[in-house]
Amino acid sequence: MKPINISEKLKLFNEHWTPKKIGELNGQQLLLAKLKGEFIWHTHENEDELFFIIKGSLVIEFRDRKVTLNEGELLIIPKGVEHKPIAKEEVQVLLFEPLAIKHTGNVVSNLTVETFETI
Amino acid sequence: MKPINISEKLKLFNEHWTPKKIGELNGQQLLLAKLKGEFIWHTHENEDELFFIIKGSLVIEFRDRKVTLNEGELLIIPKGVEHKPIAKEEVQVLLFEPLAIKHTGNVVSNLTVETFETI
Repeated sequence: MKPINISEKLKLFNEHWTPKKIGELNGQQLLLAKLKGEFIWHTHENEDELFFIIKGSLVIEFRDRKVTLNEGELLIIPKGVEHKPIAKEEVQVLLFEPLAIKHTGNVVSNLTVETFETI
Repeated sequence: MKPINISEKLKLFNEHWTPKKIGELNGQQLLLAKLKGEFIWHTHENEDELFFIIKGSLVIEFRDRKVTLNEGELLIIPKGVEHKPIAKEEVQVLLFEPLAIKHTGNVVSNLTVETFETI
């Protein structure tokens, strides 16, 4: 049971779109990710997903609108809602999701990471 | 589905030890709280609890040790572990816990809030 320092953990990796696990509780996992560029359109059929912006600005496109998230802001995307994250410049995010989730949801692409590394 | 700005939400209340709900996902809730002074010793028998420090420094006492959490740091307290938060100066925290949780855990005291207000 040790404090987890977000800034320190973010120094441990540089890959984009490759979430790293920093903790686990109540069947959920806490992930850190660096995002840059466009992700793919996808849906999580059974899991709500939380994006919390640590640094930068993230645009999340939905089929009927576009939401911009800035530092210190968070968004909960309900299950079943198709979305596409876009990071013009690098964005650092904290994600909160069920353990079983795939970050590319219903889509398997070359961006899909099967198991999130723990850092 | 709107961005939630943590700083703006924190301006909406001043009470200490009275968590406010800002979101819900996968049977879990996201709470904001301002803490000052000593809380009570308590245990959550069935729920892990996450403290993420937005502002200030929080000491969490355990029966066999003491952990200090600073801004940008988080701690996951596994279920069944007795703990007592202490905030010498005001601390602003983000909490992540199951919906059913009582913040005073196994103890009912005059600090117990039965239902967390949504802000």
